[in-house]
Amino acid sequence: MASVIFTECSSSTMLRLNHLNRRNGSYLPRPCVSLRSTASGRGCTLSIRSSSPSAIVINGMAEAKKIRDDIKTEVSRMKESIGVVPGLAVILVGENEESATYVRNKKKACKSAGIQSFEVLLPEDSSEEEVLRSVSGFNDDPCVHGILVQLPLPSHMDEQNILNAVSIEKDVDGFHPLNIGRLAMRGGKPLFVPCTPKGCIELLHRYNIGIKGKRAVVIGRSNIVGMPAALLLQREDATVSIIHSKTKNPEEITREADILVSATGQPNMVRGSWIKPGAVVIDVGTKRVEDSSAPCGFRWAGDVCYEEACKVASAITPVPGGVGPMTIAMLLVNTLASAKKIHNFK
Amino acid sequence: MASVIFTECSSSTMLRLNHLNRRNGSYLPRPCVSLRSTASGRGCTLSIRSSSPSAIVINGMAEAKKIRDDIKTEVSRMKESIGVVPGLAVILVGENEESATYVRNKKKACKSAGIQSFEVLLPEDSSEEEVLRSVSGFNDDPCVHGILVQLPLPSHMDEQNILNAVSIEKDVDGFHPLNIGRLAMRGGKPLFVPCTPKGCIELLHRYNIGIKGKRAVVIGRSNIVGMPAALLLQREDATVSIIHSKTKNPEEITREADILVSATGQPNMVRGSWIKPGAVVIDVGTKRVEDSSAPCGFRWAGDVCYEEACKVASAITPVPGGVGPMTIAMLLVNTLASAKKIHNFK
Repeated sequence: MASVIFTECSSSTMLRLNHLNRRNGSYLPRPCVSLRSTASGRGCTLSIRSSSPSAIVINGMAEAKKIRDDIKTEVSRMKESIGVVPGLAVILVGENEESATYVRNKKKACKSAGIQSFEVLLPEDSSEEEVLRSVSGFNDDPCVHGILVQLPLPSHMDEQNILNAVSIEKDVDGFHPLNIGRLAMRGGKPLFVPCTPKGCIELLHRYNIGIKGKRAVVIGRSNIVGMPAALLLQREDATVSIIHSKTKNPEEITREADILVSATGQPNMVRGSWIKPGAVVIDVGTKRVEDSSAPCGFRWAGDVCYEEACKVASAITPVPGGVGPMTIAMLLVNTLASAKKIHNFK
Repeated sequence: MASVIFTECSSSTMLRLNHLNRRNGSYLPRPCVSLRSTASGRGCTLSIRSSSPSAIVINGMAEAKKIRDDIKTEVSRMKESIGVVPGLAVILVGENEESATYVRNKKKACKSAGIQSFEVLLPEDSSEEEVLRSVSGFNDDPCVHGILVQLPLPSHMDEQNILNAVSIEKDVDGFHPLNIGRLAMRGGKPLFVPCTPKGCIELLHRYNIGIKGKRAVVIGRSNIVGMPAALLLQREDATVSIIHSKTKNPEEITREADILVSATGQPNMVRGSWIKPGAVVIDVGTKRVEDSSAPCGFRWAGDVCYEEACKVASAITPVPGGVGPMTIAMLLVNTLASAKKIHNFK
């Protein structure tokens, strides 16, 4: 998506080189190194600037830690009371590096919370039937309370077919169309809500940011983030607009937002000038971009030009350390909730 | 919904007295009689004005007739070829007069298209189980290809439970959460799309009104119209905003719309000043209001102040004769499609 959108700001593309600074357990943005294209759009001039952000930095890392600690306590209580350990199964098809990293992080988070991890790794050229067999196995396994099929799946598979096959009682990713349908319907009661948008809303709640009656703009309409985020914001009584690659004037619409959620994976697409003064900015974009100055040769970049946004927004999530950690925390929340429901444990 | 919205324009409420004029088989709005409230909002002055609309009137009545004629031909072909007659079952609970009228019209339309009608009328105080038994009976009946539970249901029933019980293959109203979920998801393939919003989009298509890249505003977020209309417009690549009772500045947002769909049931809520010059206005609201000057003592009023809107919009649906007739036409389309699918008839 967002080819049109990206074109609209590409004439003055600025790459924010945002580093990770750990201070007292929280992540802080380092002064930025900005690459500004020249008027011709070909050459670059390098300037090193010190950012003076005025926005509150929404610390997803710290909030996620609190949530994970609470889950750990609950998992222990459940094990001691009824001898049941919540279990999460992950199905990963192919060798997408970002997916593999994400799955690794999930396993680590499960382990640290005391949740049992199950995993099936299938080669890229597996058939749809093989994936469906794995789903079916986990559907029937009483030790598994949550099933997650890591997306994206290889293009020869019908994603809808596979997501449909996950038992709705174990659909901790919330991607089953029945859960999405219930999320869309007023009065609908989804068993699970997709983790990333759920994490966004949780952050707003935890920072006491009112949603009701606010103008919310969601950039991106993916099934994983944009669409369910828009539905969730609407359920909280925001007035929601959804921007996508066919939107002609994204900048103008974005500037109307009291709450802006961006989920396009287009690094630095949202400039400071796109943001209404005082808006709350939730940056879901997490793109790995090459960075020879970083110790590992890359860094994670958000959709939002953080340095510029900080000066306009009232609150903002950094990348990394904002929405990312909340996604996994919400997955653990959903898995625990599923285990409690299945075993009728309060 | 829309109590807040309604308050915002109530200080100068104008009641459009829109009558039905049949000329050459099409419905035309009569010159309006306007009731204007005084500055105090108590008294009224009566003025009779001749409207000079510049907008194209989108003739839903004529389009619906063409569709119904096509269906009739297809139903005959199906009967002659494989001996199957499509069947539509309606479950009506209680004695809501508007629902009863709607059901009567459905039966009439079915009959004229050659579609078989089935009907269950249950008293207001029926139990949820009784409704579920009727649904189940129709699910199993091979003569029934479409099942429609007339909404609203009495408040002691769980609407979600009942809609869930309709076999998804016969869900011609498109309200099953699985169909809604598929409608919401990119790449999702709903078996059926709710009839009223489907009718709105069909009218736009039939009048060659482009949707892709346009700003669309939907007023109202009901499960029946507003929400699915927003999802459909988004599937057609519009940039969609949804306005509801908690929206603080509906007028301002509505004025951004290239395509405006209003579905609140608040007569004359949308004033001419709410509409962007040249916008296309789809008025879904159909409210029965008392009118002693009408032969039957009432008239149907839309959400949009038609007389004012005509002078600003480029195209507009009248009430009645706009979206209304398309709803039933789409129901017949869905029922025929269901019968064809079940019997694998091309």
